[in-house]
Amino acid sequence: MKTRKIMLTEKEIPRTWYNLLADCPFPPPPPLHPLTHEPLKPNDLAHLFPPALIEQEVSTQRFIPIPEEILEVYALYRPSPLVRAYNLEGALSTNSKIYYKNESVSPPGSHKPNTAIAQAYYNKIVGVKRLTTETGAGQWGSALAFACNYFGLECLVYMVRVSYENKPYRRSMIEAWGATIHPSPSKLTQSGRAVLDKDPDCPGSLGIAISEAVEIAMNDKQTNYALGSVLNHVLLHQTIIGEEALKQFELVSDYPDIVIGCVGGGSNFAGLAFPFLREKFAGKNLRAIAVEPTACPSLTRGAYTYDYGDTSRLTPLMPMYTLGHNFIPSKIHAGGLRYHGAAPLLSLLVKEDLVEARAYHQTEVFQAAVTFARSEGIIPAPESAHAIKAVIDEAKKADEEGVTRTILFNLSGHGHFDMSAYDAFFRQQLEDNNFADEELQKSLAQLCDLPTI
Amino acid sequence: MKTRKIMLTEKEIPRTWYNLLADCPFPPPPPLHPLTHEPLKPNDLAHLFPPALIEQEVSTQRFIPIPEEILEVYALYRPSPLVRAYNLEGALSTNSKIYYKNESVSPPGSHKPNTAIAQAYYNKIVGVKRLTTETGAGQWGSALAFACNYFGLECLVYMVRVSYENKPYRRSMIEAWGATIHPSPSKLTQSGRAVLDKDPDCPGSLGIAISEAVEIAMNDKQTNYALGSVLNHVLLHQTIIGEEALKQFELVSDYPDIVIGCVGGGSNFAGLAFPFLREKFAGKNLRAIAVEPTACPSLTRGAYTYDYGDTSRLTPLMPMYTLGHNFIPSKIHAGGLRYHGAAPLLSLLVKEDLVEARAYHQTEVFQAAVTFARSEGIIPAPESAHAIKAVIDEAKKADEEGVTRTILFNLSGHGHFDMSAYDAFFRQQLEDNNFADEELQKSLAQLCDLPTI
Repeated sequence: MKTRKIMLTEKEIPRTWYNLLADCPFPPPPPLHPLTHEPLKPNDLAHLFPPALIEQEVSTQRFIPIPEEILEVYALYRPSPLVRAYNLEGALSTNSKIYYKNESVSPPGSHKPNTAIAQAYYNKIVGVKRLTTETGAGQWGSALAFACNYFGLECLVYMVRVSYENKPYRRSMIEAWGATIHPSPSKLTQSGRAVLDKDPDCPGSLGIAISEAVEIAMNDKQTNYALGSVLNHVLLHQTIIGEEALKQFELVSDYPDIVIGCVGGGSNFAGLAFPFLREKFAGKNLRAIAVEPTACPSLTRGAYTYDYGDTSRLTPLMPMYTLGHNFIPSKIHAGGLRYHGAAPLLSLLVKEDLVEARAYHQTEVFQAAVTFARSEGIIPAPESAHAIKAVIDEAKKADEEGVTRTILFNLSGHGHFDMSAYDAFFRQQLEDNNFADEELQKSLAQLCDLPTI
Repeated sequence: MKTRKIMLTEKEIPRTWYNLLADCPFPPPPPLHPLTHEPLKPNDLAHLFPPALIEQEVSTQRFIPIPEEILEVYALYRPSPLVRAYNLEGALSTNSKIYYKNESVSPPGSHKPNTAIAQAYYNKIVGVKRLTTETGAGQWGSALAFACNYFGLECLVYMVRVSYENKPYRRSMIEAWGATIHPSPSKLTQSGRAVLDKDPDCPGSLGIAISEAVEIAMNDKQTNYALGSVLNHVLLHQTIIGEEALKQFELVSDYPDIVIGCVGGGSNFAGLAFPFLREKFAGKNLRAIAVEPTACPSLTRGAYTYDYGDTSRLTPLMPMYTLGHNFIPSKIHAGGLRYHGAAPLLSLLVKEDLVEARAYHQTEVFQAAVTFARSEGIIPAPESAHAIKAVIDEAKKADEEGVTRTILFNLSGHGHFDMSAYDAFFRQQLEDNNFADEELQKSLAQLCDLPTI
C-alpha cells in the first residue's frame, strides 16, 4: 500500500516562524501614515496591536521563535498532514506528482488559526481584554473566536453581510466558541452608518468590515484589533505551514517544482510558499503561483500603488496591488477572496516576477472542486478550489509538454460551510461576473490624491 | 510539551476486523424470517446483500481479513487519531484521564465510512450497479455516497424528512459525491405512500426510510440495499476503530477503565468497544457504557424481544431491545440516534449486563458538547455529545470517589452540519421531550403477535 499522508509527530512541529523580510532581495517600500503620508513609525500602530506583533511587523530576524504557549494550542491540530494526492493524479491521468498541505484539519476548518492563536496570545500577555476583527466567509472570524476562547479574551466579529446571510452555520460556529458577531455594514459604528446612509442594501466588503472593527478598537483602550491577512506578522505566523511541508518533503525525499496557493489577502499562499521561496532565493529552481478570482483580481488587474487597507481610510497606506479601497467585488462564493488589495510582501514578489499570478472564474473553480471531492474525498472550500484549478491546469500543461512535475498546493480549508455554493453550482446557478476596465479605472481614480511608489 | 494526538502510520492500520461472535460467552438468538417466523437462512438475504456480507453476518471466525482495496480507501482518512483530552480534563478539573478516538476526521465527518467503504466494495465485486439506503442525520447517507463514488456504484438515499429539511448542507454533501437523495416518507414507494396516506405531515423515521430503501432494492435485481448500523457485519467493519485504539494505547502504555459510546443502532459504540470487550471476556477489568437519548431510549426503556427493523415489516425479525417498529421519536437534533431498536449483538450484551446503558436529555447533552468545543476545540456532533455527557459524569463520579480512572470515548463525528441545533441550544429553544410509559406500552403492544425470545 502506498503512503498517502506524510505525517510529523507533535514533537516535530517547527519551533520557529520564517520571516521573508530577512532574505527578500529588495527592500519593500514602507507603509505610510494615513493622515501625514509619512513613513509609518512602529508607535503609530500601538493603539491597535500589542508590542510583540508590531516588532514582528518590522523585524528582519530570519527565524522567530514560537512561544511554548502557542505551540501548545497549535498541537490541537498541528502538524497538518502533507498528502500525496494519488487519487487526484489518477482522476487527471497525469504523470505529474501532486501533493497538498491539508490545513482543513483545524477545528475552525482552515489555516486561519495559525495566526489567530499567535495574535490572541501576544495580546493576552499585555493585558488586552478584547479583540475585534472583520471576517468575510467566516473562516477568519471563527479562527479568532476559537483562539480567543483559549486565552480568555472576548472576541467581537464584524462579518461581511452577504456572508453573514449566506453562511448562518459559520456564524453559529463563531458563537459556539463564545464570540459576539454582527453583520457589516452595521449601525454600531460611524463607518458602518456612513456606508448604510449611501446604500442601505450594501452587501458589505472586507474593507468596510475592517473599518468597523478598527474603529471600535481605536475608541476602546482595552480592545485591540486583529487582522487575518495582509500584514507581515500575519504572513509570518502562517509560515508554520511551509516549514512543516519542507520537513515532510524531506521524509519522502521529494521536492516541489511548483507551489500553488489561492490569494485573498495572501496569508495562506505566503504561509506555504515563503519557506520555499527562501530556498528559491538561495538558488533552488521553483515556481510559485498565486491564484485569485476574476471577480476580485488585485494581483492580475490591479495597480501597484499605495492604498488604504479599508474603505474608511483608517488604516495605514500600504504599498500593494489594489483595485481601490472602495472596490466592492461581486458576491462570489469564495468570500475569503473578496479583498481589494493583497499583502505588500506578496505584491512586491509578484511585481518583481518572483511569484506568478493568475485568475479564474468561479464555475471553472467549482468544477475543479468537485473533481477534487470525488477523487481525494475532501470537499474543499471555494477559496482553496482556486488553487486546485491551477494545479489541474499545471498538471495538464506538464503532460502536454511531456514532462513530469511535482506540484504542491495549500488546501487552505474545507467547504463544510459552503455547501449552498455547491448547491448553486450543481443547479448551474453560479454567475461568472467580470467587470469592465472602465469600472476598474474609476475605482483606481479614487487613489489619485495618494502617494505613489 | 505533552503529546496530545497518539498517531499510527498508514502502514500500521489493522489488517483485520474483529468478530465478537467468536468470543461472545452466550449464543445470540437467531433472526427470524419476516413472514414464516422461522430462523433466517443466509439465502433469505440474497436479494438485499452480496454473498460476502451475508457470510460475515453469520461468521464465527474471530478475525476477518480486510481486503487491500478497502484498506486503500480507508487510508484516505485512517488511522484516526487517539487523542488525550488534556484540555477537557483541565476544564473539568478532574484527576481522571480522558481519551477520545477522533472519527470525525473522515471526509463525511463520522465513523460511518468504515462500513460504507466495505459494503460498497463487496457489492461492487459481484456486479451490483446501485445501492439504496436510508439516512437520519445524513451521516450514513453521505458516507455511502462517498464510498459508492470510489467504487463506481450509483447511490440512492432516503433521508428522514425532518433531517432533510433541517440539514440542507448534509444533503448537498451527499449530492457533491454524486448520489441521488429523496426525503422520506416519499411518494416513490408503496411504503412511503402508505405512511403519507395516514399522516401527510409525517416527519419520518429511520424505520420508514429503511422500508423505502429495502422496497426499491427488492424490486430491482441490479440494486442492493446497504444498512448503516444494527447488523453484525456493520458492527464488524466498525471494529477497525477499537483495533486501532488498542494499538494506540499500547504506544502510551495506558489502558481504559471505561469505554463509552453513543448508541443509535449501535455501530460506533460496538466499533470502539467490541475489541476491548474481547479483552474483558479474557479477564480484563473494564466497564462499557452505551449512551442514548431519553427521547429514543431503546436500551433503557425498550423491551428485549423480536421486532422488525423497519416500519413496514419488510426486514427480518431481530432479537433486540426495541421501542416498537412504529415508534416515532420526537424531533431531537441527534437525528442519528432516532432509531426504535438497537443492534442484536449490543442488545444481548446489555441484557447480560456486560454493557451498561443510560439515557440523557438533549439540553444536558448540548451543554456537554459546548464544554467539549470550548476545551478540545472540535465542535462535536449532537450524537457524539451523548458520549461526552457520560464521560463528564464518570469523571466527576471518579473524583467524588477519590479515584483516578482512564476513560475512553468515541468522538463519532463533528457537528459542522448541526450548527442550527447549536443555535437552538444557545437561544434556549431545545425541548427535552420525554414520553409516558403508556405511550411506550401502546407502541410495544403492536408486537404481541410476534415471537418472543
